[in-house]
Amino acid sequence: MNASLLSGAHWPGLIEHYREFLPVSDRTPIVTLREGNTPLIELAAVGERLGRGIRVWAKFDGLNPTGSFKDRGMTMAVSKAKEARAEAVLCASTGNTSAAAAAYAARAGLRAFVLIPEGYVALGKLAQAVIYGAEVIAIRGNFDQALAIVRAVAERYPINLVNSVNPYRLQGQKTAAFEICDQLGTAPHWLCIPVGNAGNIAAYWMGFSEYAERGRIRERPRLQGFEASGAAALVGGSVQPVARPETVATAIRIGNPASGSLAIAAAQQSGGAIRAVSDPEILAAYQLLAREEGIFCEPASAAAVAGLLKFGHEAASGSQVVCVLTGNGLKDPDCALRVSTLEVSPGLDPEVSAVARAMGF
Amino acid sequence: MNASLLSGAHWPGLIEHYREFLPVSDRTPIVTLREGNTPLIELAAVGERLGRGIRVWAKFDGLNPTGSFKDRGMTMAVSKAKEARAEAVLCASTGNTSAAAAAYAARAGLRAFVLIPEGYVALGKLAQAVIYGAEVIAIRGNFDQALAIVRAVAERYPINLVNSVNPYRLQGQKTAAFEICDQLGTAPHWLCIPVGNAGNIAAYWMGFSEYAERGRIRERPRLQGFEASGAAALVGGSVQPVARPETVATAIRIGNPASGSLAIAAAQQSGGAIRAVSDPEILAAYQLLAREEGIFCEPASAAAVAGLLKFGHEAASGSQVVCVLTGNGLKDPDCALRVSTLEVSPGLDPEVSAVARAMGF
Repeated sequence: MNASLLSGAHWPGLIEHYREFLPVSDRTPIVTLREGNTPLIELAAVGERLGRGIRVWAKFDGLNPTGSFKDRGMTMAVSKAKEARAEAVLCASTGNTSAAAAAYAARAGLRAFVLIPEGYVALGKLAQAVIYGAEVIAIRGNFDQALAIVRAVAERYPINLVNSVNPYRLQGQKTAAFEICDQLGTAPHWLCIPVGNAGNIAAYWMGFSEYAERGRIRERPRLQGFEASGAAALVGGSVQPVARPETVATAIRIGNPASGSLAIAAAQQSGGAIRAVSDPEILAAYQLLAREEGIFCEPASAAAVAGLLKFGHEAASGSQVVCVLTGNGLKDPDCALRVSTLEVSPGLDPEVSAVARAMGF
Repeated sequence: MNASLLSGAHWPGLIEHYREFLPVSDRTPIVTLREGNTPLIELAAVGERLGRGIRVWAKFDGLNPTGSFKDRGMTMAVSKAKEARAEAVLCASTGNTSAAAAAYAARAGLRAFVLIPEGYVALGKLAQAVIYGAEVIAIRGNFDQALAIVRAVAERYPINLVNSVNPYRLQGQKTAAFEICDQLGTAPHWLCIPVGNAGNIAAYWMGFSEYAERGRIRERPRLQGFEASGAAALVGGSVQPVARPETVATAIRIGNPASGSLAIAAAQQSGGAIRAVSDPEILAAYQLLAREEGIFCEPASAAAVAGLLKFGHEAASGSQVVCVLTGNGLKDPDCALRVSTLEVSPGLDPEVSAVARAMGF
């Protein structure tokens, strides 16, 4: 075949593409679904609302293979699990983490276990992990007990813990910062990002800092993190756990963020902040993104845009702003059905004029 | 900023990337969600089953912005609608087409209408289009009447029809063939693809043929199209409509394919064929993809892999085969729940040894 005329420009997945920045070696078997390389999409309608020449883009990480940014960390965590000759991976998460863990474990030929507190979790949320073959185990006890057990199991058996305590996950996640700089041709002035367990904002800071150290960017962005107001454990500038977190944005419904201190430090060092947006603000941004930008994301992702709309007056004129959309809207169809009333015009006569009239023509 | 050190290698969307192959001009306002550039993922477990050195990849087009390959055609159709100063777009589809139409119309600032036969359609399938702001109109009548009306409306009013009769859609869809050649560095020997309305297989043939004409590839692949056996209108070598198509693969549950003749001609010219796979074969491939490859696609997409597993013995040793996965599994969570029984081990005591035992350690 005439290969020389073609680029063969196959995106190899984020580990191969950013290998020099990652703790892998020739002995690491790379487990990849060609994650990363997600699109940067300009948000013209959001930019217009802000005015003053501010331009805004979405980094749509919901277009990763399992539908969330978790794939970035999981390609690292599962590759390292395989390198360490683990026989299985284990997590105590029920949302996007368990789906990503199950998919990469399936690809690696490892078993994947998800530990949940009995009766605690809406099982529907686990459906995606289960289709990838995850095995679900319930314990009598609460979520903290589940976390303690997965840690202890991972210490004693050839099983790798892929919860957020796994250090390789942030290593993989930091590559999203690299991609944004590579795609934009520069670092943005602001990075707006949802904050739940708070690891991702810390990972972005690591990524921007490494690019700055290597001289690939001159300045790092201000990190503007946004929690849901019903789960705002970090907005006071220290970790103040919320006993009963409540928000429509389930992916950031976390009362005691595992990486809270890291996240606060990152935001402060960058000259940014972690602040809260309300559920109505989140849902307004969620609908704006769908109805004016054509982007359907998870409610939690919309927190980044909600925060920008709320605090964007603080950004300098002409700023370049990137909002991180962490998950795919298809992950949470219930929310879509709740916010949009499906009003079907009642059955019209099958006549052109009647239909045109119903359409306002 | 230090832009010179960065690539700024922003994927611009498929129209800009393949502009020389597409009917657009400087006057065409490009409406894009940075669609295309979807990953090519090796399917090692499928390859192993075939043996004889055959290598298999998935072109996972379910990672397009609205979750299906329809985005490729819709960026073209809506850009041309905007160029023609249409005020709205219109379709009589209820699945992936209506979602893509609504998203691109939202981005273009056009209204999007979806016409359905009253009482005919499961409204849940329309949820994605509605979140993007589509307006749904029901008529008394059947699907054929709905199709007739949308054609007549589009003729008389400043409204563009974006159903499969819109010729720009296949133009956009053909770029997937370009991408596969660019990513693989050559054309594959076989292309396996689901066949429903039959436009996509014809679009791929157009794409491979244009690349061959320009000398970018030397040989075109054999096209192996797969219908569901309950909706197999083309397997006899002519269009033989199926009155009541039935299959679990809803995206290809089409009894009278609009592009049937084109599809048959394309398959025959290529030295391939259009054949049928059963629902059990489709679901087995669907589960294999999830549980062994870590890829969650729509059931219809799995028809491509089911067909390869069924007829792959006909491929030459050492062949390179690409399977087109047209849609994201998150589009059809009901199917995932049906095939995978979620068996949660009953609540264990919160003790490490009990949990380890339950895991088989």
